[in-house]
Amino acid sequence: MSPPAATEINGSSPPIRSKPSSTPHPLSPLSAAEIQSAASLIHALFPATVDLHFKTITLHEPPKASVLPFLAAERSGDPTPSLPRHAFVNYYIRNTNRLHEAIVELSSASVVQNKLLPKNYHAPADSEELIDLEKIALADPSVQAAIAKLQLPEGTVVVLDPWIYGSDGVDDDERMHQCLMYMRDPSNSEEVDSNYYALPLPISPVMSAVDHRVVRVDVVPTGRDNAIKELGKTTVYPANEYLPEYQTLRTDLKPLQMVQPEGASFTVTEAGETSVLEWQKWRMRVGFNMREGPVLHDISYEGRPLFYRVALAEMNVPYADPRSPFHRKSAFDLGDVGAGLMANNLKLGCDCLGSIHYLNSVLSDTKGKPLPMENVICIHEQDGGIGWKHTNFRTGRAAVVRQRQLVVQTIMTVANYEYIVAFIFNQAGEFTFEVRATGILSTQPIDEGLSVPWGTVVHPGVLAVHHQHIFSLRVDPHLDGQSNRVVYDEASPMPKSDFNPHGNGYEVHTTPITQSGGYDLDPLRNRLFKIQNAGVKNPINGLPVAYKIVPPPFQFTLSDPSSFNHKRAEFSDHNIYVVKYVDHELYPGGQYTNQSRGGTGVRSWANRKENVLDEDLVVYVQMGINHVPRIEDFPVMPVETLQCHFKPVNFFTKNPAMDVPPSEQRFNQSTLVSAQHCQPGVEGVVTAEGTVETNGSACCN
Amino acid sequence: MSPPAATEINGSSPPIRSKPSSTPHPLSPLSAAEIQSAASLIHALFPATVDLHFKTITLHEPPKASVLPFLAAERSGDPTPSLPRHAFVNYYIRNTNRLHEAIVELSSASVVQNKLLPKNYHAPADSEELIDLEKIALADPSVQAAIAKLQLPEGTVVVLDPWIYGSDGVDDDERMHQCLMYMRDPSNSEEVDSNYYALPLPISPVMSAVDHRVVRVDVVPTGRDNAIKELGKTTVYPANEYLPEYQTLRTDLKPLQMVQPEGASFTVTEAGETSVLEWQKWRMRVGFNMREGPVLHDISYEGRPLFYRVALAEMNVPYADPRSPFHRKSAFDLGDVGAGLMANNLKLGCDCLGSIHYLNSVLSDTKGKPLPMENVICIHEQDGGIGWKHTNFRTGRAAVVRQRQLVVQTIMTVANYEYIVAFIFNQAGEFTFEVRATGILSTQPIDEGLSVPWGTVVHPGVLAVHHQHIFSLRVDPHLDGQSNRVVYDEASPMPKSDFNPHGNGYEVHTTPITQSGGYDLDPLRNRLFKIQNAGVKNPINGLPVAYKIVPPPFQFTLSDPSSFNHKRAEFSDHNIYVVKYVDHELYPGGQYTNQSRGGTGVRSWANRKENVLDEDLVVYVQMGINHVPRIEDFPVMPVETLQCHFKPVNFFTKNPAMDVPPSEQRFNQSTLVSAQHCQPGVEGVVTAEGTVETNGSACCN
Repeated sequence: MSPPAATEINGSSPPIRSKPSSTPHPLSPLSAAEIQSAASLIHALFPATVDLHFKTITLHEPPKASVLPFLAAERSGDPTPSLPRHAFVNYYIRNTNRLHEAIVELSSASVVQNKLLPKNYHAPADSEELIDLEKIALADPSVQAAIAKLQLPEGTVVVLDPWIYGSDGVDDDERMHQCLMYMRDPSNSEEVDSNYYALPLPISPVMSAVDHRVVRVDVVPTGRDNAIKELGKTTVYPANEYLPEYQTLRTDLKPLQMVQPEGASFTVTEAGETSVLEWQKWRMRVGFNMREGPVLHDISYEGRPLFYRVALAEMNVPYADPRSPFHRKSAFDLGDVGAGLMANNLKLGCDCLGSIHYLNSVLSDTKGKPLPMENVICIHEQDGGIGWKHTNFRTGRAAVVRQRQLVVQTIMTVANYEYIVAFIFNQAGEFTFEVRATGILSTQPIDEGLSVPWGTVVHPGVLAVHHQHIFSLRVDPHLDGQSNRVVYDEASPMPKSDFNPHGNGYEVHTTPITQSGGYDLDPLRNRLFKIQNAGVKNPINGLPVAYKIVPPPFQFTLSDPSSFNHKRAEFSDHNIYVVKYVDHELYPGGQYTNQSRGGTGVRSWANRKENVLDEDLVVYVQMGINHVPRIEDFPVMPVETLQCHFKPVNFFTKNPAMDVPPSEQRFNQSTLVSAQHCQPGVEGVVTAEGTVETNGSACCN
Repeated sequence: MSPPAATEINGSSPPIRSKPSSTPHPLSPLSAAEIQSAASLIHALFPATVDLHFKTITLHEPPKASVLPFLAAERSGDPTPSLPRHAFVNYYIRNTNRLHEAIVELSSASVVQNKLLPKNYHAPADSEELIDLEKIALADPSVQAAIAKLQLPEGTVVVLDPWIYGSDGVDDDERMHQCLMYMRDPSNSEEVDSNYYALPLPISPVMSAVDHRVVRVDVVPTGRDNAIKELGKTTVYPANEYLPEYQTLRTDLKPLQMVQPEGASFTVTEAGETSVLEWQKWRMRVGFNMREGPVLHDISYEGRPLFYRVALAEMNVPYADPRSPFHRKSAFDLGDVGAGLMANNLKLGCDCLGSIHYLNSVLSDTKGKPLPMENVICIHEQDGGIGWKHTNFRTGRAAVVRQRQLVVQTIMTVANYEYIVAFIFNQAGEFTFEVRATGILSTQPIDEGLSVPWGTVVHPGVLAVHHQHIFSLRVDPHLDGQSNRVVYDEASPMPKSDFNPHGNGYEVHTTPITQSGGYDLDPLRNRLFKIQNAGVKNPINGLPVAYKIVPPPFQFTLSDPSSFNHKRAEFSDHNIYVVKYVDHELYPGGQYTNQSRGGTGVRSWANRKENVLDEDLVVYVQMGINHVPRIEDFPVMPVETLQCHFKPVNFFTKNPAMDVPPSEQRFNQSTLVSAQHCQPGVEGVVTAEGTVETNGSACCN
């Protein structure tokens, strides 16, 4: 299917800018005016009667080759070249399967590309459509008939979460939704925030995403096999609410406040939609878009460039239940919905402590109108414990500094689950990408007294199926320049010999990666991946400057290599992928993940077998959780934390945190517990409050 | 060599107690009076003219079989049985190789066991002896002659660190020290806290630990091979100081204080040397001894026992340089010196933030006198970020709690290195053992311009050799009772079949460990070790209650299986060891690690091939760093952090942190950066300080 030729627009209104006098930075997310302008230009391609359903209107970043001279000029204070602004747009003709992809040049107000995409290219879901689907489904006679069979208590409120349909190759060319159904606690049906995931129902309507009709009503298996039982009277188990008003709250937790009497140590300079963040020798540009949420550009330390672009690029959550319809549960939360679209509005004093700066963003709605997103990123500092310490054992003099950290955080809600995504920087030139998984397990009904090896019963009648979370972080390095390589170190014992007679010797050797491909950790060899600039040598030891990549090992996708899961999640089978940089190759599961077929992501790019030695390259770093639910993960799971560290290796000439001021009481203002609470000790037993004399620092009488 | 028979002491003075009316808790560390009493009883075994050199006087814990009924009675409020108090003592007849080991019963003032240990059993080093050795070595004519050959600038101060000698089977039966030599910056020789590790010298005296004489003066290789060059004029490279007064300190770091206006949420009840710590449903007894530093006993949650005893039990630090004398560098920092003896005196506002409670301890000196150790443990709370969160995407209502953590921390200085050891508890029933490695790399001289595959040049003329840090945490579980087992889960794909036609299915199966032995992680199978009580089932899902053990994988010892390193570090070759509980088997590298020969540690115990299924068992969990130095690790390395997590698995009936009060602004008192700093924005550029309207929460004009 060949896309229509690019179309020029004439006579449309010029793009609107809130600050028409200033040119946006080439990496700045689209402004509200730019979004509106892009939508108008697309609208103008069609007769006024055609209703368009916009899915994405986002910055189409300029080619790196044109941005690098811009950034170099910016760094040196020279006049910056003027770069044209482009928007990437995709949209349906509403209530059709006609998905279009367009590139709009905003500067010249022209649509430079507009094509109808082939079938099996499906756009992500959006909130408007999901809410509409729920309403239609619940009003549908076939769904109502199925609900009636369950003989729920009078007044029970039924809830429906439309899921992405997934792919299995069986009648799945049309864009559809598989809906999971639950009920609120029937004894408290007015509670709009009831944890309905604790009360799953065995009905699962399938709906067309095109015209929102109910295609069929699936009944799900609830036993140990794949038999489908006839719907009948539902056992109503007790609720399991997570809201605080349903708990007997602990009363012995005292406040702990992060106080920054002189304010934060970072500065954020905002111009339009772009924010330059500077802190402790770090400098970066913080952007935000619908798909990836936060995007960090042009990260440098002490003026030395480190990374051109870093963002969470995709995740895949495949489930272990092989039975229909559950076998298709395999979410790509970024590509199927969008991390930015699902970002929480972060609240002061709830999601972060200390002196907080929030960033707002603007995305687009399905009409192509700007969608303001408030407080989608919080920026704050935190204490990371001791940063380094040494005591001279002869004199007893200690030198100690604390490790201050800068956090750039966003939180997304994907129906039941939450992901807290943070980029954490410290004063030793290190940065950490962190994901905390929390929220509510995706549940399904299970018959009383049963257990199955692909899930855990987390509440009476509730099965939480095992699943994997596989995250892919896209790292576009620029370590002291564009020509980088990825190498790996391995430590191996020296053979016993005259040189190593006692068998203690071992060596570290470095292997460069020359060809694009997927590569894996090997903890037993201490295999360590590093991004290196072979052309820049450390002035003291002559070794090439590098940053190491330290992700935790994980179990790769458990889905069969022949499965759709495996074909679609192209990043899910290796710890890292190294590929040659190509403009606009950003998503390792492909641009369109919804009901995708594979063949458009990072495994395919790696198969180009390109040279990646001393090239402009991109690294995709994967982290994963094989989530075998515990009952302790319900009703809301304690955070499960994953961290990938990036640390300098022979990049500086010493510990970059040597110049951090010492950790001292006049700065930190700590308190002795004993000095705070002057309570009499019980006779014969000295309580914490009374043992002060021996500490020599406080007295309490 | 058969030890002398146990000797009864008559007529010695009764043990002294500071609080004679109260009986110490059976798990309470020895008091000063008990230490004095034990020493007196040992002294009384010998004529008054015999000078004894005490190495250890510590609590000899009562047999578990007698402590368990005591703890049960204590828990239920019943009268507790009276248990005799014992001290474990080892000592030399001063300046001999005659090492004795004794057990003293304090209650009856009797020495119940006293034996001379076989040769090749050597006691640890102690600070007094190390300081004495340095003095003697520097005054020794042969050492002075070697120094003279180096032709150091006039006034240069030479420093000598006596190291443990290590084992290689070559003339190493006598207890000795290998001394590493350095100089202070010759241009600033008055600086007593100069970083002499940046200026290593090629001389290495060997000294007898018996009579402190210099046995020989080794010259160390400084090239690429093992050739020893004749000593000659030393090149003096620039210094590399770590003290703050030698740095140009950053000036843009603003204070960040942890304020707890109502005090800490924990309580410590102290009686004599024992401290009961209670916090957020956790309760434990915090002790401290010379060898292990902090020891946690009787850890319970909501009254349910979890662990009988947890402590860092040993570590091994073998180095990669195969050349003499460096091949013997293989430190056992706990067994060779003692984590408690090396504990830092922690300072308010320097080593921890917030409301701090310090614990003091009392150890013993070489005369057998009490050695007060102040502020060796700090107890404090910290904020661990978001603990759990869920937002109802339909209503936008968020439920969020923060994760408060309780930290029990100690810091030890082992000559050049520092280890920050922390036990961290949270409100979700989880506990984490954390080690942060920091301090200064052990260095040696290297000729200019060279590089070697077993080390990194971190400063001109300074080689930091690769080395491993292998830590062993001893975990004595008591999960809802004494009969526990260790099992491991593995996830594996289901074969494709009619039941799993699309190839997404996977299962988790559990394998119990039946026999004592070493067992390993396998991230590619998601192998997960759990401590289980098979006799106690979760009331909701019927699964046995368990805690999972989640340590990071690491590269096992690289030393040849035939090497002394391998034989001695018996814990260094597996992620975990599971053995049957035996009273007083505490140290996985053996009771006496100094110049040890192996055969007395956990590998040997495991080889008893005992049943560990539903038994009283002990788990040794290993964590490791293969430290391939970066130049960024010098002069003081940024913390390298290792964590092992212990988390409940079907132990509770829901997330135990559901009852944590919600994270709210009135509790957390966070601040908008914009509300703190009212500075005018630059025209056309809105700074962080001015972007307040869109946050809706503050205004700044």
